[in-house]
Amino acid sequence: MTRDEARTLDAADPLRCFRARFALPNDVIYLDGNSLGPRPVASAAAIDELVQHQWGERLIRSWNEGWIEAPQRIGDKIGRLIGAMPGEVVAADSTSVNLFKLMVAALKRDPTRNVIVSEAGNFPTDLYIAEGVIGCVPDAELRVVPRGHLAEALDEQTALLLLTHVHYKTAERFDMAAWSAKARAVGALCLWDLSHSVGAVPINLEGTGADLAVGCGYKYLNGGPGAPAFLYVRTQWQDKLLNPLSGWMGHRAPFAFGDGYEPAPGIQRWLTGTPSMLAMAALEVGVDLMLEADADQIADKSVALFNLAVETGDSLGLECISPRNPDQRGSHISFRHPDAYALCQALISRGVIGDFRDPDILRFGLTPLYLGYEDLIRAGEILGDLLATGDYLARAFTVRRAVT
Amino acid sequence: MTRDEARTLDAADPLRCFRARFALPNDVIYLDGNSLGPRPVASAAAIDELVQHQWGERLIRSWNEGWIEAPQRIGDKIGRLIGAMPGEVVAADSTSVNLFKLMVAALKRDPTRNVIVSEAGNFPTDLYIAEGVIGCVPDAELRVVPRGHLAEALDEQTALLLLTHVHYKTAERFDMAAWSAKARAVGALCLWDLSHSVGAVPINLEGTGADLAVGCGYKYLNGGPGAPAFLYVRTQWQDKLLNPLSGWMGHRAPFAFGDGYEPAPGIQRWLTGTPSMLAMAALEVGVDLMLEADADQIADKSVALFNLAVETGDSLGLECISPRNPDQRGSHISFRHPDAYALCQALISRGVIGDFRDPDILRFGLTPLYLGYEDLIRAGEILGDLLATGDYLARAFTVRRAVT
Repeated sequence: MTRDEARTLDAADPLRCFRARFALPNDVIYLDGNSLGPRPVASAAAIDELVQHQWGERLIRSWNEGWIEAPQRIGDKIGRLIGAMPGEVVAADSTSVNLFKLMVAALKRDPTRNVIVSEAGNFPTDLYIAEGVIGCVPDAELRVVPRGHLAEALDEQTALLLLTHVHYKTAERFDMAAWSAKARAVGALCLWDLSHSVGAVPINLEGTGADLAVGCGYKYLNGGPGAPAFLYVRTQWQDKLLNPLSGWMGHRAPFAFGDGYEPAPGIQRWLTGTPSMLAMAALEVGVDLMLEADADQIADKSVALFNLAVETGDSLGLECISPRNPDQRGSHISFRHPDAYALCQALISRGVIGDFRDPDILRFGLTPLYLGYEDLIRAGEILGDLLATGDYLARAFTVRRAVT
Repeated sequence: MTRDEARTLDAADPLRCFRARFALPNDVIYLDGNSLGPRPVASAAAIDELVQHQWGERLIRSWNEGWIEAPQRIGDKIGRLIGAMPGEVVAADSTSVNLFKLMVAALKRDPTRNVIVSEAGNFPTDLYIAEGVIGCVPDAELRVVPRGHLAEALDEQTALLLLTHVHYKTAERFDMAAWSAKARAVGALCLWDLSHSVGAVPINLEGTGADLAVGCGYKYLNGGPGAPAFLYVRTQWQDKLLNPLSGWMGHRAPFAFGDGYEPAPGIQRWLTGTPSMLAMAALEVGVDLMLEADADQIADKSVALFNLAVETGDSLGLECISPRNPDQRGSHISFRHPDAYALCQALISRGVIGDFRDPDILRFGLTPLYLGYEDLIRAGEILGDLLATGDYLARAFTVRRAVT
């Protein structure tokens, strides 16, 4: 694709108007929105209103003026992005903490089942938290197997199949309906980590029969650094599962201050402590913005951006390790290169921000809301120039690795 | 005390300069800083710099430019407020989540001990989380007894004594050294919830032999609504206790992305997921401000404010349920009144913001950094007027109860 062709595509892009809704620096091509989404323009005013008016002027009264409902209000909005019903999602805590809640709950649902099955190479915190869970729950077992052996690892001992919808390195995507059904067939629940798919690819928790899910607020949802995560529990499981992190925000009457814990009905029981309202305010702006966009247009543009990126990679002789079939991947693309780390740092120094993943992966987020075709052409030119000149090898790059 | 005498005290108050460091509305006398601290003036600029520059301009690079160290950097600052050593405190998650981590860890330290002892009427989330913990850990038991029976509840089965340093209703304060020693005498650990004491009364975790502690960032530390909490582990226990919420931020090499969890050395292992940097930025401003103040001056002024408040209460015939001995209380004062709820709402409608606690308690935070003697005189006049006229009974108050 030529630069002129890219400009023509940008001009015709139905999502083009969203670019101006983000405060991106002019000297950067941002290909890391799958790691930390950029700042929506509207977030500054929303946070300022929270700081100056709600906190500064209204003080404690703000809890009764919209704060206390925020986890469920924002949860319901996220629910619309992932095909959940109202009352099935809350915004709360971190992805890691929410994983812990749901894994313990799934193990305790049926005392005859004691195994969590997951994939080797899953996003590390999912496996780390699973280790913590089996360290708590008596006789629990963690069975981590390569993707090709997952099906045979499921059996009548399995309490939970724990899968990440889109793989953080390769962008490989599981078929949610098929794997939810495989778990159900052995009587297990399936817990989906949507961190690398929410806001990036179509998700329909209701339609695919998903039982449980968690996901991240600071990637494609553009909710701010370390934004609150979310947690989904299908309605049918809500009165059958208990939150082990049984804090006061999940109590049926938090302000009665009674000594004994009584779980709230519905999704509220999955709350634990007092949420950061600054973090919630920024998350809500990101989610509201995503709700304005058409999900089909996002999916279509993700495919088109990927096609352009893979064409560029092919022309530069880079090995693409992401699936070429759009139904089998997320919205990032990864290439293997022996000098991936140095290349990544050299790209950053030239204003092209992607990231590196051990041991030899260059990863680029393809975020339809604010990335244009010409951006990718320019990024490809810079990458091509680095590869041709070997400039990335000539420098000492001291930048440390960034947070995914 | 007359209004003139109060003005004289205010004029001579060595902490007087701190009042201007807070953005308090002019029409409010804020007696609820023990529930939600008001906004430090400096927080607006700090949050704006995070939003505009760190998030907006630097994007993912900010993780390497101060973000990743924030939980430990802010933790060390909080440590200076509570007599901890560097490397003994992190800012992370909510108080509830941190309670869970430490309770599970304490139970797992010694398999011959299976009991958590705590006080009936403790802050509810402490007991709720303890219920969640014993629901996870096999054979664990929660023994909740009245304060007068705590000593006899401790025995060789006790893994952990869980106490809140200053009681959220009455302001009663435990003798930290004495109770830490009682726990130690039976071989148990002692976990202190400092939520209602940090920033309010002198705390010396090191000197009093405290083992473990958690506390809240949004009360006397003025860290913003739902600010991150903190967690303290005495150095001697750091390599003997494991965080059950074993997320990637507590891994010894979070960016190596290995499949197996290896706890970081030191306090870092108590981190779990990615922290909200908006929340961290606001918390750091509050903590920095508190570090500027002299702890002895805070303690002295807290006593003087209490004496004035109790004198006012006595003159109005209110029953004070907070200890009159300063060494035995925190920095709030509570009165019992049969119409406490209506009185509280009537006070709020007249600009005096305190709070109500079930069933009949009027609670007022006495926060030395921004509360003056004349403020208390004015609040007392308004309260006296309401009691004399019965105005609080004449109105229908619909405001819901606020978050502690």
